Parts: sequence; C-alpha cells; structure tokens
Amino acid sequence: MIIVLKAQTTKKDETAVLQEIRRLGYKPHVMRGVARTVIGAIGDERSNKSLESLIAWSQVESVTPVQKRFKLVSREAHPPDSNIDVRGTVIGGRKVQVMAGPCSVESEKQLMATAEAVAKAGATILRGGAFKPRTSPYEFQGLGEKGLKLLAKARRETGLPVITELLSEDHTELIAEYADILQIGARNAQNFQLLIAAAKTGKPVLLKRGLSMKIEEWLLAGEYVLANGNRNLLFCERGIRTFETYTRNTLDLGAVPIVKNQSHLPVVVDPSQGGGRADLVSAFCKGAVAMGADALLIEVHPNPKEALSDSAQQLSLEAFGRLMEDLKPITAAVGRE
Amino acid sequence: MIIVLKAQTTKKDETAVLQEIRRLGYKPHVMRGVARTVIGAIGDERSNKSLESLIAWSQVESVTPVQKRFKLVSREAHPPDSNIDVRGTVIGGRKVQVMAGPCSVESEKQLMATAEAVAKAGATILRGGAFKPRTSPYEFQGLGEKGLKLLAKARRETGLPVITELLSEDHTELIAEYADILQIGARNAQNFQLLIAAAKTGKPVLLKRGLSMKIEEWLLAGEYVLANGNRNLLFCERGIRTFETYTRNTLDLGAVPIVKNQSHLPVVVDPSQGGGRADLVSAFCKGAVAMGADALLIEVHPNPKEALSDSAQQLSLEAFGRLMEDLKPITAAVGRE
Amino acid sequence: MIIVLKAQTTKKDETAVLQEIRRLGYKPHVMRGVARTVIGAIGDERSNKSLESLIAWSQVESVTPVQKRFKLVSREAHPPDSNIDVRGTVIGGRKVQVMAGPCSVESEKQLMATAEAVAKAGATILRGGAFKPRTSPYEFQGLGEKGLKLLAKARRETGLPVITELLSEDHTELIAEYADILQIGARNAQNFQLLIAAAKTGKPVLLKRGLSMKIEEWLLAGEYVLANGNRNLLFCERGIRTFETYTRNTLDLGAVPIVKNQSHLPVVVDPSQGGGRADLVSAFCKGAVAMGADALLIEVHPNPKEALSDSAQQLSLEAFGRLMEDLKPITAAVGRE
Amino acid sequence: MIIVLKAQTTKKDETAVLQEIRRLGYKPHVMRGVARTVIGAIGDERSNKSLESLIAWSQVESVTPVQKRFKLVSREAHPPDSNIDVRGTVIGGRKVQVMAGPCSVESEKQLMATAEAVAKAGATILRGGAFKPRTSPYEFQGLGEKGLKLLAKARRETGLPVITELLSEDHTELIAEYADILQIGARNAQNFQLLIAAAKTGKPVLLKRGLSMKIEEWLLAGEYVLANGNRNLLFCERGIRTFETYTRNTLDLGAVPIVKNQSHLPVVVDPSQGGGRADLVSAFCKGAVAMGADALLIEVHPNPKEALSDSAQQLSLEAFGRLMEDLKPITAAVGRE
Repeated sequence: MIIVLKAQTTKKDETAVLQEIRRLGYKPHVMRGVARTVIGAIGDERSNKSLESLIAWSQVESVTPVQKRFKLVSREAHPPDSNIDVRGTVIGGRKVQVMAGPCSVESEKQLMATAEAVAKAGATILRGGAFKPRTSPYEFQGLGEKGLKLLAKARRETGLPVITELLSEDHTELIAEYADILQIGARNAQNFQLLIAAAKTGKPVLLKRGLSMKIEEWLLAGEYVLANGNRNLLFCERGIRTFETYTRNTLDLGAVPIVKNQSHLPVVVDPSQGGGRADLVSAFCKGAVAMGADALLIEVHPNPKEALSDSAQQLSLEAFGRLMEDLKPITAAVGRE
Repeated sequence: MIIVLKAQTTKKDETAVLQEIRRLGYKPHVMRGVARTVIGAIGDERSNKSLESLIAWSQVESVTPVQKRFKLVSREAHPPDSNIDVRGTVIGGRKVQVMAGPCSVESEKQLMATAEAVAKAGATILRGGAFKPRTSPYEFQGLGEKGLKLLAKARRETGLPVITELLSEDHTELIAEYADILQIGARNAQNFQLLIAAAKTGKPVLLKRGLSMKIEEWLLAGEYVLANGNRNLLFCERGIRTFETYTRNTLDLGAVPIVKNQSHLPVVVDPSQGGGRADLVSAFCKGAVAMGADALLIEVHPNPKEALSDSAQQLSLEAFGRLMEDLKPITAAVGRE
Repeated sequence: MIIVLKAQTTKKDETAVLQEIRRLGYKPHVMRGVARTVIGAIGDERSNKSLESLIAWSQVESVTPVQKRFKLVSREAHPPDSNIDVRGTVIGGRKVQVMAGPCSVESEKQLMATAEAVAKAGATILRGGAFKPRTSPYEFQGLGEKGLKLLAKARRETGLPVITELLSEDHTELIAEYADILQIGARNAQNFQLLIAAAKTGKPVLLKRGLSMKIEEWLLAGEYVLANGNRNLLFCERGIRTFETYTRNTLDLGAVPIVKNQSHLPVVVDPSQGGGRADLVSAFCKGAVAMGADALLIEVHPNPKEALSDSAQQLSLEAFGRLMEDLKPITAAVGRE
Repeated sequence: MIIVLKAQTTKKDETAVLQEIRRLGYKPHVMRGVARTVIGAIGDERSNKSLESLIAWSQVESVTPVQKRFKLVSREAHPPDSNIDVRGTVIGGRKVQVMAGPCSVESEKQLMATAEAVAKAGATILRGGAFKPRTSPYEFQGLGEKGLKLLAKARRETGLPVITELLSEDHTELIAEYADILQIGARNAQNFQLLIAAAKTGKPVLLKRGLSMKIEEWLLAGEYVLANGNRNLLFCERGIRTFETYTRNTLDLGAVPIVKNQSHLPVVVDPSQGGGRADLVSAFCKGAVAMGADALLIEVHPNPKEALSDSAQQLSLEAFGRLMEDLKPITAAVGRE
C-alpha cells in the first residue's frame, strides 16, 4: 500500500500512522517529497489486514493498493488459457463456441423448433430461460421447472448441452440437476450468496457482467466462484449501462481483450442483451470474434414477433442461419474455427 | 401504447400491425401524420399483454407505453403519504427519523458504545450489519448470527428498533427473528427472489437504490414488495454510479423529491454510502432534510480509524453528536422535527 | 509521482526507469515490497516534466501523481474564501445571491416584465441568453446583439447587474461590452481558447460544469482562467449526465461542498438546467442553500408555456416569488442571508 | 408530436392544449384511452414551431417527437453511402483508410520519421496535432503554426494528405491553409460556432463524438456542418465516458453500425483515444473493421516513451507495421481492402 500524508502533517501525526502500519502487520518505508510525505507499507496486502482504514485518519490524503485484489482468476496465478469442458464441448480453445436459443422457454414446440434449427446451423450449446428475472412483477416470469424439463428433452434430442439462469439460491439443486452451465444474470452479478451456491454445485458457471460493474469488481465476483472450489468459470460481457439511449445497453467489447489479458478464464459475449436490438446482433458478433471472444450467447426465436420476453433482440431462425455463415470468414481471419 | 410506423410502410404491413394489436387485446386508432403513421393502442396496458413485441416488426419504428408500469407504489394508487410504524417509531410523518450505528457489528463493546451514544444524541433506530456483502471474498464478511444477537441486546438496552441487511433468501427467517426493518442492499436491489422473501415476512423493508437503477426500475422493484402483500416499504437513496471518481458514488438527492412525488412511500437517504467520505456526511444530511427526506441512515463508529469495513465514511460518536445539533435548524426550517 | 513496476521486472529494466526519472528532473527513491517494486519520484510535479510518459514503458504497471494538478484555484493556494464583486453585489460572502431571468431574451416586453418581477422578489443579478447554443441547427439561436441591448436596458431600469453566455471567441468584445458576468456554458467548459478569451476581458467569469466533467477537470478548466490573469471566477454546478432519464441531467449537489473544500472560489448552483423540470427547482434550491451554495442561477419567464427555449424548466413570475419566500428559513438555518 | 395528458384532465384544460397545438401550426387528433388521453399533433415538426413548450403545461404528462430531428445527415435524405474525397483518397468506399501519425507534432525529426514509416506500412492519411487542447494549462499545448508547416512538409515528402485539429475559430483560416481534413475534437463537439466555421472552409471535417454525447446529439452536431453547406463530413467514434476506470474511455464500437444505419456519411474509429492504452489498439482496430468502420485514426510515435502527450496510447513504428499486417485478414473477411 502507498499512503500519502497531507501537506504540513506534524511529526507526531506521522508517527501515529507509522505505528498503525506496523500494528496491522506491514513495514513502513518513508519517502519525503517536495510537497508531500509518502509512506510505502511493505507486506502482503492479501494476508495482512487492510490498510484502507487509514483513509479515515485526518492526516492521510490517500491510500492506494499496489497488489491486485483478485488472485485465483488472475493470469498471474495461471498463465496459460483455461479451457472449460462442458460435456465434451470445450470453451476457451481454438473453436469459437456458439450458445443459442430463446430468451425464455415458452412451449415445447417453440423450444424444439429452435433447438433443432440452431443445432443444424452450427450452434454447440442450447440456451433458454426457465426462471426469468423481470423488471416488473407483472411481466412473464418463465415456465419454471416445466421449462427445465423441456430443456432436458431438447438436449436429448439434439445432443446440445444446456445453459440456463439460476436466480435464487433456493433453486440451486433443481437447476443443477438439469443444466450443464449455470448462468448468473447481470442483476445478480454481486449476489455473492448465489455465486457461492452456484460454485458449490461444481458445474460450469457463466457470470454476466453487472450493469455498472467495473472490470475489477467483475473479476472479484468471479473470485468468489474459484475461492469456493470451482474453476469452471466463464465471464460474459453483455453490455453496461451508460447515458446512451439508442440502445438498451452499451456493449463494452473492450472488456474482451482486457479480461483475456487479466485472467486465464474464457470470455463470452452476449450480443443480444448487449444492444437489445436484433439488427445489431450480427455486427456485434463480428466485432466480438475479431476481438478474441471464446464464445457467443445469442437469443434466437422461431417467431420473434410473438416472443413473451425481449422480442426486440431475438433473431429468427433464418437470421441465425445467415449469421453463422457470415461469421465464418471472421473466425478464420483470427485463426479460429 | 403508441406505435410509430416507419416512413413508407405499405398498407399490407400496416394492416398486419393493426391485427396484432387487436389480437393482444387492444383497440387500434390510426393517425396519419405528415412524415409517419402513428397508431394508438387503446386498452389497459397492465391487464392486456404487452405490445412491446411489436418493436421486433420490421415496419415498426418505436413503441411507447402511455401508462406507468408501477401501480401499488404509485401516488395515484394512494394519494396521501404512507407512514411506516416500526415498533412505535413512525417513518414518513412529521419527525425526520435518524437511523444510526456501525457499518458492521464488530464486537459487543463496539456496538453497545455506539448504540448508547447515538440514542443519547437523538437517533431513533439502530443500524448495524451482521451479514456483509463484500466486493472481495477475502474481506471481512460480518459476524453473522452473533452480530444479530448483539443487535437484539442493544435494542433491549436502548429501546431502539433495529435495522440490518438481508442478503440471502436462506437467512430470511433468521434475520426476521431479530430485525425490525429488513434492509435490501444496493447490489441486491433487483434480486427479485430476495425482495419476495423479505416481503413475505411482513416486516418493514428498506430498499436501497441499485448503483445504476433508474428511478422507474427502483419503483418497480418496490412494486415486488407491495405485490407480495407487504405495504411497509421504505425507499433509500444511497448514491448512484457515475463517471466521477472524487467520491465513491454520486448521491442523487434529486431522487428525494421525485420519489416523494411519484410514490406515497417514505424516502430515506444514506449520506455515508452516498459519498463514501465522512467529511461529506454533514452537508449531505442537510441537503437531504432540506429536500424532503423522511429519514437518514448514518454510519457511526466509536473509532472509525479501526473499523473493519468502510472506515472512510463512518462518523465518530462526537461527530455524530455535532451533526444532530447542526441538523436542528434545517429540520425546523422545513417545518419538521 | 509514484511508479509501480510490474512483478518480475529485471534489474536492467528497473535501472532504465531510474535513469528516465532522473533525466526528467526527479530524484528516484526505491522501495522493494513483497509483490512489487515501487519507486517514489521526488521533485516538483508542476515544474518538472510529467512522468506520465512512463506508463508507456512495458515494465511499468502504474504511475500516480502525488500533487494536485490545479494550483491557483486551490484552497491551499488561498485558504480564505474569495469574494467576487459584481458592481457592488458580492458573491461568496454572507448573502446567498440569486441570479434570475429568462433562459433566452425573447422580446423587450418579456425581458422587462421578468427583470422587474425578479428584482422585486429579491433577485440581485439578472440572467438572460442572447446567443444560445442549441443541440439542433433548426432551433431558435437567440436574438444576438439585440438581446444584449435589451439586457443593458433592463440593467438601467432595475439596477441589477447582468450575466449572459459567451459562446464564441469572436463575440468576446461584444459580450464584455454589455455583460457584468460572462457565462461559459457546459458544452464549452473545455473550450480552452474561449476560457482564455473570457479571462482576458478581466470580467467575472461563471464556468458551468461540463456534462461529464470530473471535478478535477472542472477545477483545471477554472485554472485556465486564473492562469490567464483573472481571479474573478465562479464555479456553477448544473447537473451531470448519467443513465437516469427521469430528469434531463442529474444535479450533483455533492459538488458544492467538495468544490468549496478544494477551492477558495464561490460555487453557484443552477437548479433549472440541473433537473430540467420546473417542479424540481424549489427542492433543488433548498438543497443547494443547505449544502453551502453561494448563489443560485434560476430561469424565470413571464409565460413559460410560450417560451422559445427550455420551457419545461422555467418558473413563472409567481412561482419565483413563492420560491424566494420559501428559501428564507433555509438560508437563515445555515446562518446566511 | 404525441402529447399525453395527465389522468383526470378537465375538458377545459384539454381544449386549451388543442388550441395551442393549432396556434403553433399543427392539426390535433384526439385519442381517448383507458387511463389517459393522447393527442397526435399532425404537421411537419421541422417547419412548424416546436411543441416542446407544452411540457410546461400542468395538464401535460409528456411530449414525444415522431420525426427525427436530423435531416441532411440522415440516411433517409440520402440512401446511398456518401464518399468523401480527400485529395484522391476516398473515405467511405471499398478501401478501409488508415490515418496515422503522432498525437502531437513535436519536431521535424519525429514527424518525418513517423510519416515515412506509416506511409511505408500502408497508412493513407497523416495525422498530427499542432494545436492541442489540454486538460491542464500547464501541459504542452502543441507547436502551433510551426507544427502545421512541418505537416505540410511531411505531406510534400510522402504524398499523404494531412488531418489536424481545429480548436479555435480564430485559427480557422490558418488550419484550412495547411490541412486536408479539419478535425473537431471531442471537447469541442458541441462548440457549434467552431463547427460552423469549419464547415464554411469547404474542407472535409472529421467530427469526434463528445465524451457524453448521445448518438442523436452527435448526428445533430454533424447537421450543423451540412446545414452550413459542407457535405464532406466524417463521424469519428473515440470512446465515451463511463464509470469504468480500467480504460480512459469506453470505446463504443456499437456506434459504428448504428451511425452507418442512421446516416449516409462515413464512420471513422479512433482506437488510441478510445482505450487510452497502446496494448488495446490492435484489438480495437480489428473490432472496428469487422463492424464496418470506413477508416481508422491511429496514434503512432517513433518513441512513445518520450512523447510529450498521451504517451500511453501511441504505437511504436514497429507495432504499427505489425498492426497493418494483422488487419489484412479481417479487412478481407468483411469484403474490403
């Protein structure tokens, strides 16, 4: 930690800070500058107590950590890329995986039609929401367990592993019984109890970025999963909240190279939530692949016009087929499949 | 709902939209403008199906709701102010209530010293975290049930009702056994399952605004509480996330008059989280009271320099005493106690 | 400056950094920590060359300045409050000044009616836009010089000094001939050439905060005015851009105590632009005064319903009169007039 | 325009609104809904007076425009793509153009070395700042006219057209004498007088997006250029301001397909400002090209470690050469050169 003292700090006030630094397990190192005195506190910031309480001292101007706060998710902890194996489908390897399916599972007919079409077009994982977090209590909340059973049926018929959202600790066992990947949604990205519950299932966890989550906070939320014994974590960029109103969210594609650089874990991009508009999905997918995404998570519906949720952002089966074709040259251009 | 069609929409495409509007239970009303055709869809937007799926239609430019999406929390549904009675302490009435206490319950000594001092200075509710949501898994996570027992002891000794955070559905029964108000933190503000669990206890619920929650979304999250049979809801503004880095959050005091105007429920302001700096708490409290807040939620610690969490923003006992004195003239100036 | 080296930096790479630090005029001071080596660069950061170029070195993880970048506007440079005298009206003293008038000067009748009414209600400075910066080229752009002449006439008749916006370097002489305070609008807050031109007139300058300006950047923009020989600077908070859409901007009242703490210069609040809604102006004024604002800048129009710009946020003459009455107890409660 | 009246509006208040709508040149059309009355105001929103003043009426809940506010820049006004010819180099055609060069022109040696290297590597336009807008008045402000002369010399020697920033109306003639494209920086993106001055030179204008500019506002700022008789406009996305602190700005690559869709004008991406970090430039360029950018604007310096401004984000000559190679497969994958 680096502690900067205010100008004109007395000797006595400085000594008090030095004592506190020692008390918390660090070795202080004083540097007298032209305008300020700076103290380096030497010691392991993750095993000693935090020095951030020093900011409450009237003679202290700032306290800055030197070490990163995340550990197990960091590239330093594990220099090579991590691959996540989902029933034989590997995310983080040479192949860019495509997870596709409806926003919500609405009916057997809707799901089966979608699952077959996306499998045929080349998707390798099936997505579908059974429990849906909705801004208003009056909106469609998903089919619940019935939806999970339909997903299991679609998996049997197509062979595609299944990803679905976990939004309540109370559903953990139930979801883990049916799903191959547990999705944690943006609104629950700092619901740490849910992250711990998901981690403990041992199943792969896909952690969406919260609407106003800094990258460091996102990595630390992921740290909850690894610190609870589960290394099968995927980070998923799905758009952040900004002042722009043209799109529902602002997809932060820069997060792809940044997280790939800071962490060894795979990065997924959700272009459907990212912009909230079907007409932007294709461009977002191209950008995501060009920038190094390991997988895409795409909403597809046999009839977007009648979807019970997020109709504006779901692709039709035909549009999804075209998209898969369009992505091929880009995928090849970055040396992937 | 107002549906705007794109320029040059064909008669056939327009007819399809009109049929869909009727199918979803509305009566369409066409207006031909100079540059665009606009369709009003007449019907109750909260009992009929949503027309938002129309945005997925290629001939549709925009779909705008006319009715507000929140109902039970709205001022229209209940024109007079609602008061919330917490063991005889009324929030939302003439008296501005002050909830004070440590960020985290750390020890019996720390809590009792704080509780007695804040009671003496005029606080009417005791706050204290027993389960703490922390950005990093390596930070202090609270004393858990032991903390709740200490809060109950402090209540017995001071007579102050107690508010503490609920951060897991699995803790609902436990927290409800000890707390007089259940706090839902900013990170869980759209954890709808937790809101439903909290609502069902029947205890008053204080709902903090999420870091990037629009006011409408906040009111809709509150709607989950009322729609689940609990009318004892408090909204708490605690700062939003912006680009500014001088403070941890940007306290949006404008939310006070806006929520008071849109809703009948009381509004609380948290000046400690709001700025993340003890030196701003006094100014924020003055602004909050001047702008109509019904209560304040203030972090106080007998020795902020040694606090285990959020040391930078907690007031000392002396500073809290001074603050309570300083607030008196402002409270009087707005005709309150 | 504090320079943190990456883990595993070689001795040779470290030496290169030390040499560069010396070359740029600083004395390096090395601290070896557990995980990182930290270098303090001792010397005056404002007279030596910036070390920020070090961030481009591959062995460098971060470069953090220790000194504040602003100087003349800082409280350290001038501990007592500065007062700005505008033709005998003092801003920054015991009296909270009120600048009021129409968004745009529209006609002699409109301006005179407003000027007389606001003077009678207790306003001490007259505001009015003659040149208007408009988002669209097709919107009303102001009366130009004719508007300035009307402002001068209103000043003669009411005795109120006049504030109006300067939005082009080419208008500097013209505006300075008529105005007693030159307003720099939010969109021009980092138009440094305009700030320099305004500074050189010697007239008081009111600098609005840019829509997404950090407080440090705002103070540095103000530094351009003082560094060009003009100490008569007023900072004006007018709302920042956030994700919230209920209001046009989010008024950041926290900026009032922060800027008062960091700088010796007076702080003005614009509650009209701040929320963009007349129904919020009163609450914003109360909050601003309670939090220490030195002056208010309020839009008033004899008939807001027919205003040529920003009609939604202008108060009627009657509403302004009531507001001035309502503010009296708050002003007294904070020990001001 | 669509005007929504508040619930329980009296007949008299409704009639007053209808009269005002007629007075301003529109034909009102009333729709009575279940909860609200909605009025369509039929007429050309760009030739009649604005109805936005209605929002100030107490009986009015909302006023929503139906027409887009921008006209000449819109795709509707000019369905095919517009190409901008800069001394024979066409922007907006099949070839993705690359503008490269130093952030600031610092010396003849630095500029010539850069110009020759970028030309050799395939750049087609030379960038370089002669007048620099700097956050602090104490930072390097550019070489001024001397820098312009060096740019002209570099153009003579390499044949590359030159782009440089215009930051003061007073420099317009001077800059136009030397530059082939006039760049308007992010901080001046709503400095409308500067836009008008730039437009009137007739030279191509590159308009950077402001730090917190909505896409609609950006298009309207561009409208100032076309409305002043200059059709040679380029939009340049360079990152917006968000809460994220890992990067200086958040590059909004989604703006590329959106602006291409809304407007006929070419879109340029600045990956250097966009992230503020040299290590992200390559990924950003790949994403930009994949998503449809017509040109890139890249900062290159022979020795970024000694750059006088923005050293963290400038590429070395070698890194630029590698980047140009890396981009080839992506450019081919989207069917461009």
